[in-house]
Formats: sequence, structure tokens, C-alpha cells
Amino acid sequence: MKIDTQLSGDVIMSGEQSMTELVNLAGRIYDLDERVYKATGSALGRVFYRNREKTIDELLENMCDTSRAHIIRNEFALIGNMARTIPNRDVYREAMTEYNEIVHQLRALTGTLGKREIINATEARLNSFGNAKAIVGAHKIICISRSYGAGGDDIGFGLADKLKINYYDAEIFKTVSKRLEAESDEEMSDANFELSQNIKNPGLSYATEHMTLKARMARFNRYHGLSARDALFFTQSELLCDLAQKEDFVVMGRCADVIMSNNHIPHVSIYITAPFKLRAQRMAEINDVDMKQAVKQLKQVDRRHASYYNFYTGRKWGNASNYDICINSARYGIKGSIEFIANVLNGTGNSDEK
Amino acid sequence: MKIDTQLSGDVIMSGEQSMTELVNLAGRIYDLDERVYKATGSALGRVFYRNREKTIDELLENMCDTSRAHIIRNEFALIGNMARTIPNRDVYREAMTEYNEIVHQLRALTGTLGKREIINATEARLNSFGNAKAIVGAHKIICISRSYGAGGDDIGFGLADKLKINYYDAEIFKTVSKRLEAESDEEMSDANFELSQNIKNPGLSYATEHMTLKARMARFNRYHGLSARDALFFTQSELLCDLAQKEDFVVMGRCADVIMSNNHIPHVSIYITAPFKLRAQRMAEINDVDMKQAVKQLKQVDRRHASYYNFYTGRKWGNASNYDICINSARYGIKGSIEFIANVLNGTGNSDEK
Repeated sequence: MKIDTQLSGDVIMSGEQSMTELVNLAGRIYDLDERVYKATGSALGRVFYRNREKTIDELLENMCDTSRAHIIRNEFALIGNMARTIPNRDVYREAMTEYNEIVHQLRALTGTLGKREIINATEARLNSFGNAKAIVGAHKIICISRSYGAGGDDIGFGLADKLKINYYDAEIFKTVSKRLEAESDEEMSDANFELSQNIKNPGLSYATEHMTLKARMARFNRYHGLSARDALFFTQSELLCDLAQKEDFVVMGRCADVIMSNNHIPHVSIYITAPFKLRAQRMAEINDVDMKQAVKQLKQVDRRHASYYNFYTGRKWGNASNYDICINSARYGIKGSIEFIANVLNGTGNSDEK
Repeated sequence: MKIDTQLSGDVIMSGEQSMTELVNLAGRIYDLDERVYKATGSALGRVFYRNREKTIDELLENMCDTSRAHIIRNEFALIGNMARTIPNRDVYREAMTEYNEIVHQLRALTGTLGKREIINATEARLNSFGNAKAIVGAHKIICISRSYGAGGDDIGFGLADKLKINYYDAEIFKTVSKRLEAESDEEMSDANFELSQNIKNPGLSYATEHMTLKARMARFNRYHGLSARDALFFTQSELLCDLAQKEDFVVMGRCADVIMSNNHIPHVSIYITAPFKLRAQRMAEINDVDMKQAVKQLKQVDRRHASYYNFYTGRKWGNASNYDICINSARYGIKGSIEFIANVLNGTGNSDEK
């Protein structure tokens, strides 16, 4: 393997870095620091005070120890910061070119920048925000969780409206579930059974489309023995997965993010919150109660959401590490939050309005 | 005031809505539901089962009570969901046109959609993500907080590099502070004093540029009586505000978000975290320790960050309602997080790379 150890240029990178390459790189860092120091003329503008050999030794030590690699990164960032202040444009350009080259070399050295991955590949693959490829062809599914009073419902509804896609929340699901039950009762009579077989029904009555009466009865008996809450949860989970196969939508709460993840369906998950005091003030206004009452309600509703989420997901509700992003609605307002989310979806090529 | 009460069209909105307008709107909602129900031919596709008059009464009650306005919104969302399934394209278009018109009418009615603002105007005005106008002419200042092990440092550094702007963190600030002190000592001698007056020094030596020796001595004595930690905090705060006047940068930690807010400087604040277990695994690898040790370190470092942040800001560290956005780096990876943030900055017209 040929290794170009000249300071001038393109070091050939192999899978494993040879010491020669590292020494070369350390030397370039030292030299750049010296050059920048001379060009800025600043008595303070020098990162490395010691002589070239000693500095290179120190740099090498840090390069080879991932737990200390951030030191190089910081020292090097300081050189970059200084370089950007060089008044002479030619010297500036030259220094920045060398700076950028070294950054890329450093990056090519595994671990040299202290960079180890933090990715959860399974979940990252399903994150439509972060993975434009995952969502080509897939439906646009936006799962929103929110703390009470943060305006999450208004934001979710407004977003669905802006994107011209469907909107689902607990009340809508309840209505849908009631209808499914009512429909199920109806269909106990043959006439209605015949009817449901013949009409084209592309709406929310997902259950009627492809299922025989027998299959549907089986479906309704399936959760026998479960609590009503559990049965509802599982019905909703199934409904969500069905919907995700055929349409774009915004869904509020319902642990939809976790249901999508568990079923390997690409989506984005957003948590919307705002400072407690602001939320309480807002709910006091909306519900026309005093602050004391509002605070009590806030805590109750948040606790209920938390308990529901924790029960069905085993995760901690409202913890930023459960979602793709969290948004503080107080920093944007309701309209601003809607626009912000729509922009973010657009930014990743994920929101061509239909 | 002329009020057009025809169902056909453009109701003239006044500051206060007359009952006639509300009745008109409620009627249009009922009629749309009926139309959609007929067009989809679905036995399930009807939101309002009761007769027109009773339904209008109910709608009016909900319209006039902000605490129940979300009910209309949900019922109406359901009509919209159904309307989108109308197979005949002409009927579909007609229904959706009416749907959109009603949405806009509803929105114009203050509070009708249960929409009350959640905005903190003071902070929203400073949020460069949410307020493109705020940052025209202002510098691009990106404040990043992070939980230990989430890769926040790598992401912040990579972001600065991608945007070609400066990067500051605790260690860099420490270096800068040391230099300022060293410089201060140097300048006790006249020769050095003369030198510092004469050389052009546009770098990090912000203190030397416009201050007399006397002013600078005063500065260094100013925090007399404060603990070293407090003195450092205030020095860093001043440095940050100075820097914010003249350059774009990424700053890690240092309560920079709160310092920017307190000084009315537009910025974006980002919190980067990831699930605890993943962070511990990552740090176990980087620091070459076992999981038990890594967990202990993680808790220690997070506790230290939290205590620092809480002490100087009175806010709870890591709580999503303190930041413009939170990002779960495990859903993007390090490179993905850098790209995501850069995209978001671009999406709001806030990141023309220089």
C-alpha cells in the first residue's frame, strides 16, 4: 500500500490507519495552527504553545484514545475559529482550505473525532423525518402526543387541514368504534348483511369492505376476556394499521407512535408541550375556571395520558427520547407550530400537498 | 351592517359574530354532512343522526362554549374524512370546496375551534426557527443542550462545520478565559500594553479591542466576591453576548439559550437526547468501561448538567418546554441529526451557508 506522507496533500486512506498517516495529520494540524497564528497576528491566537514534536506526540495520544478524541476536536475547532478571522482574503482562503481538508481526514479516521454512533437503526429506519428513503411510496403518517393545554389538538387539526389529510383523535375513534358496533348489530339481519355486501363503501367502515360476517363476528369476539379499555386499544391499533396502508393522516395520542413502530410502519412522531404555567393559564381561560382549578385539571389529564401511554408502551410519556422531535408550542404559537411542522416535513421532501 | 345569510356564499365577518351568522354556519355544516353521506352511500358515513333543527341547536351550543368547541372540530373533521372518500370526482371537489369554506368561516370565529393561543410572545419573538423575520440581519446563533452520551457534542461540532460557523463549548471557553487572564497579566508591563494597542487583533481577544487597560482591570475585578464558578458564568455570558453581536456560531451548553433570551438576542435552542440505555451503551464503548460504570457516569454527568442549568436559569434542564425543539438523536444518527437540523434551519430561510 502506497502512503503519501507529504504534508501537501491527499493522504490515501486505508481501512486501518497507519501511524504514518496519523503523524502526518498531527503535523498538519500543528502547522495550520502556526500559520493561522502568524496570519492573525494575535498574541492569543495560538492553540499549541509547545514545540512541534511534543505537540504531535500529544495529538497522537488523543487521536488513539476515543475517550480523549474530543480534545483534538475542540483544539481544532479553536484553530478554525481563529482562521475565520484572518483579515487577508487570500491567506484566509488558503487556511480554510487546509482546515477543511484536515476536518475530512480526521472524520475518515474512525473514532478520531470521538464520534461513535448513537443510532437505533430499527427506529431510525421508520423515522420519516430523518429518512427520506423510508417514506417514498409510504403514506404520510404524523403521530402527535401532547401535554394538556399546549394546543396540541389545535396544532394537529390545523396541520391535517393544511396538508389536506385526515385527522383522527380519541373522540373520532370512539365514534368510529360505536359505528362499527352498530353496524355489527345491524348486520345480524340478513337484509343488512346483503346490503353491506353490495354497496361500495370506501369510507371509515374499513371492516365491512373485505370481511365476511363470520370474520367480523370473530373479530368482535376476539378480545373476549379483555377489559373494555384493552379491547378498545387493540381495536384502535388494528384500525390505525389498516388506515396506514391506505391513507395519509394525523393522529393524536392513542400511543400511535409506538403502534406504528411495533408494526414497522414509517411515520413521524412529534411531542408538543409548553411551560406548565402557560398551559394552566390557557386552560383556565378555555374552561373558565380559576388557576387553582386549572392546575388541578392539568395534572389530572397529564397523569391520565402518562398512565395510558406507560401502560401500553412501557415507555415514559413526555420524555423527549421517545419521539422524533419535541416542540415547545409557546415558542411558535399555534399557527406558527403548524407552519413549522409543515416546513420540517417539506424540508425532508415529505410533504407534497396533494 | 349587512349580513349575507345565504348558504351559498361569503358571509361578511364582523368583529363580533351575530347569531344569524352562527346559525347559517351550523346549517351549512349539517347540510354538508348530509351531502357527503349521500355521495359516499355509506350507512356509516353520517355524523349527525338527529334532525336539522336539533342538530343546529347543538352545534350552536358547542360554538358558543370554548370548552366544547373541540367537539365541533372533531365532528367536522369526521365529515372531512368521509368527504375525501367520495368516489365521484365532481361531487368530491364540490364537497371539499364547501368543507374548506366552512373551515375558514369556523376559524374566523374567535374561539370557535377551541383555539386559544399558547404563545409566549417574548420568547417566540426570539425563536429564529419560528420567526424568519426575527433573524433577518441577525446572526445565526444555535444553542445546543444535550444529555450525556446522546452525541450532542458530535452533532454540534458537525453542524458548525457544515454551516461553516464557529463552535464553542466549555473547554473552548476555558481556554479563552485562561488566555484572557494571561493577557491581562502580560499587559501589566508597558511594552505589552503598547503592543496590544497597536496590533490589529480581530480574533478571540474580544476584550483587547475596544477597552483600555483600566477598563479591563475593572472588568476582571468586577466579580470580586463571587465564587469562581459564578465569575466564570458571568464572564462566559458576557463573551457570548459579545460574540452574538459579530458572528454566527454553535454553542454547546453553558445555559446559552437562557443567556440569549435574557439579552433579547434571537437564536434557536435545541435539546439533544436519546434513550438512556443507548446512551449508556455508547459511553461504555467510548470510555471503555462496563455498563454498570457507564450508567453511573451517565447519571453523574446528567446530574451535574442539570444542577448547573437549574442554578443559573431556575429552569428544569432537559424539560422539552425549555427549548424550541428537542431531537432524539437515536432516531437520526449523528450525521442524520446534523442534516436534519441544517434542513430545519434552511426550511425557515435561516441558513444560507456563507
